Amino acid sequence: MKINGRHTRSIWTEGEDAVGIFDQAKLPHQVVTMTLRNADDAARAIGEMNTRGAPLIGAVGAYGLALEMRRDPSDAHLNAVHDRLARTRPTAINLRWALGRMRDALLNQPHGRRAALAWREAAAICDEDEAMSRAIGRNGLKIIRDIAARKPGQTVNILTHCNAGWLATVDYGTALAPIYLAHDEGIPVHVWVDETRPRNQGASLTAFELGSHGVGHTIIADNAGGHYMQAGQVDMVIVGTDRVTANGDVANKIGTYLKALAAKDNGVPFYVALPSSTIDWSLARGADIPIEERHAGEVLKMAGRLPDGSVATVEIAAPGSPAANPAFDVTPARLVTGFITERGVCPATPEGLRGLFPKD
Amino acid sequence: MKINGRHTRSIWTEGEDAVGIFDQAKLPHQVVTMTLRNADDAARAIGEMNTRGAPLIGAVGAYGLALEMRRDPSDAHLNAVHDRLARTRPTAINLRWALGRMRDALLNQPHGRRAALAWREAAAICDEDEAMSRAIGRNGLKIIRDIAARKPGQTVNILTHCNAGWLATVDYGTALAPIYLAHDEGIPVHVWVDETRPRNQGASLTAFELGSHGVGHTIIADNAGGHYMQAGQVDMVIVGTDRVTANGDVANKIGTYLKALAAKDNGVPFYVALPSSTIDWSLARGADIPIEERHAGEVLKMAGRLPDGSVATVEIAAPGSPAANPAFDVTPARLVTGFITERGVCPATPEGLRGLFPKD
Repeated sequence: MKINGRHTRSIWTEGEDAVGIFDQAKLPHQVVTMTLRNADDAARAIGEMNTRGAPLIGAVGAYGLALEMRRDPSDAHLNAVHDRLARTRPTAINLRWALGRMRDALLNQPHGRRAALAWREAAAICDEDEAMSRAIGRNGLKIIRDIAARKPGQTVNILTHCNAGWLATVDYGTALAPIYLAHDEGIPVHVWVDETRPRNQGASLTAFELGSHGVGHTIIADNAGGHYMQAGQVDMVIVGTDRVTANGDVANKIGTYLKALAAKDNGVPFYVALPSSTIDWSLARGADIPIEERHAGEVLKMAGRLPDGSVATVEIAAPGSPAANPAFDVTPARLVTGFITERGVCPATPEGLRGLFPKD
Repeated sequence: MKINGRHTRSIWTEGEDAVGIFDQAKLPHQVVTMTLRNADDAARAIGEMNTRGAPLIGAVGAYGLALEMRRDPSDAHLNAVHDRLARTRPTAINLRWALGRMRDALLNQPHGRRAALAWREAAAICDEDEAMSRAIGRNGLKIIRDIAARKPGQTVNILTHCNAGWLATVDYGTALAPIYLAHDEGIPVHVWVDETRPRNQGASLTAFELGSHGVGHTIIADNAGGHYMQAGQVDMVIVGTDRVTANGDVANKIGTYLKALAAKDNGVPFYVALPSSTIDWSLARGADIPIEERHAGEVLKMAGRLPDGSVATVEIAAPGSPAANPAFDVTPARLVTGFITERGVCPATPEGLRGLFPKD
């Protein structure tokens, strides 16, 4: 994706002993990069949400483990680092998938080769993630083309929640990949961007991405999406996901469920875009997914730019009032029109998922 | 309602030529009062949301008109002030109801008596609003008692959206009135307070009110209510409303519709509390209600307290991204369990409403 006119991925290597990322906690107020030199750096960046997005934290986790293999390639250290990184965030499955893949690739290898192998495997995870995002984009593009064909000359209005763009993946994104491809081929698209409280990933990251790429968009309060669907101003919804269970239930950023209900009530197609690494075949249904509870301060405070351009955090709520902050909710499969994956689009059913991804 | 231990209404007279209100745009960061001396003051306070809440802006409008009668009691001025105040906010019907009642009470009266009559009529509107809120409280209390009886020893969890408490009325509130009465008679109640973006009336006003009165509550992002309903942690929803149409459709703060959908999906009772002055018998259905579009700045900026205690406004979104800000949405009658009114509880149907409020 382009940033200041230059093609940029959301994660890159710096020599052979460091990895660079954008500090997404500072976006959109400041465009600042961070250097990760070890697993502690990676764990902190994931936990504090300097980096986020289910596919991207898988990539960051993989590199976090790879950075440690240079220092201590023992089984004990490999397992300890694997477990430490896996604990940083409980809901997204891609992190566990990436860490498991790294461990599987290394455990039977001689200690002396582990550092180089780990570096290569992490790079492969990144390359594959980008390829999957492109494929998701192409598969979702067909749906947008169909909608555009039904309303010639008119704008296709797409609502999204949170950020599932290139900042959530290695490049292109999941939910936003079809939108970028549609825009690039000249389909008039406009995106309703849910601000996505409490951390505002929509108003800060998605709006920043779409604006950088020149895609028309409007930020709305999370409360407003149902109203625009009632008014016929939403042609489709596309969101990303942190984990899909075998029956097709979808864990995604808190508030996704409410938009899915409104889409169903108004006959608006509701799509979930994901790479297959987001599917957790081991869980039967969404109720089994652990939901991360984050700190109350994310609800009670908000960061932004003061008139002089400096960044400050203000307390927005009544002093002394407590807050609760579940980070994800589960959208039942019955509310999902389809999954947009790297292999194609399928219904949100066990059969739909197994049709595209048969058991090995 | 008590503020700093002293019983306080949300509007009061200051001598015979001024009216006092709380500047709700400054709450909860500063508790500041404002004095209104004429209709311009009242119109500005309503438009800028220094005062808000459907019943309360009816009372402020009535006093705004009364203040003008001292200066110029002519029919022309009466009509001009009526129209000017009616235009300040388009969605809430109580304002139009109160202004119509004032004009009807004055037009056939001699000019010399209009100032005194208007002052008395505005006071009557306030007294009646308080009496209606108390009656709404008593009628809603029965529903809370029933829920409490079904889960002895356990807390009754009630979710509310926006602020329909004493700050939205003359006293007690609509949606919060039953909660205050339940708390006062010892029923263990806990309120999930939707923060209510973009203006945060939940996190600022509702949390402030409930905290002042000692009612247990937790602020949550607007996105989180559906998740708590799925988890069985919401026993009922009570909201206020700005206008109910003859068929039982409900205009209320943007986002109410999403909570009603989630309540329906999870079998959680969804009640709307209102005085009968909120019913617009002239409109057949909710789609006919004008929805106020407010400025984008309310979405793009947020006010709060800096660490030094001063109040500042920060820009929270990506620079240059546009925003849209519809202030209300319409919840279809089919999603509403019942209306809690000053005359009792009724189904959200034309028959239900007419059963309690037969045509005069």
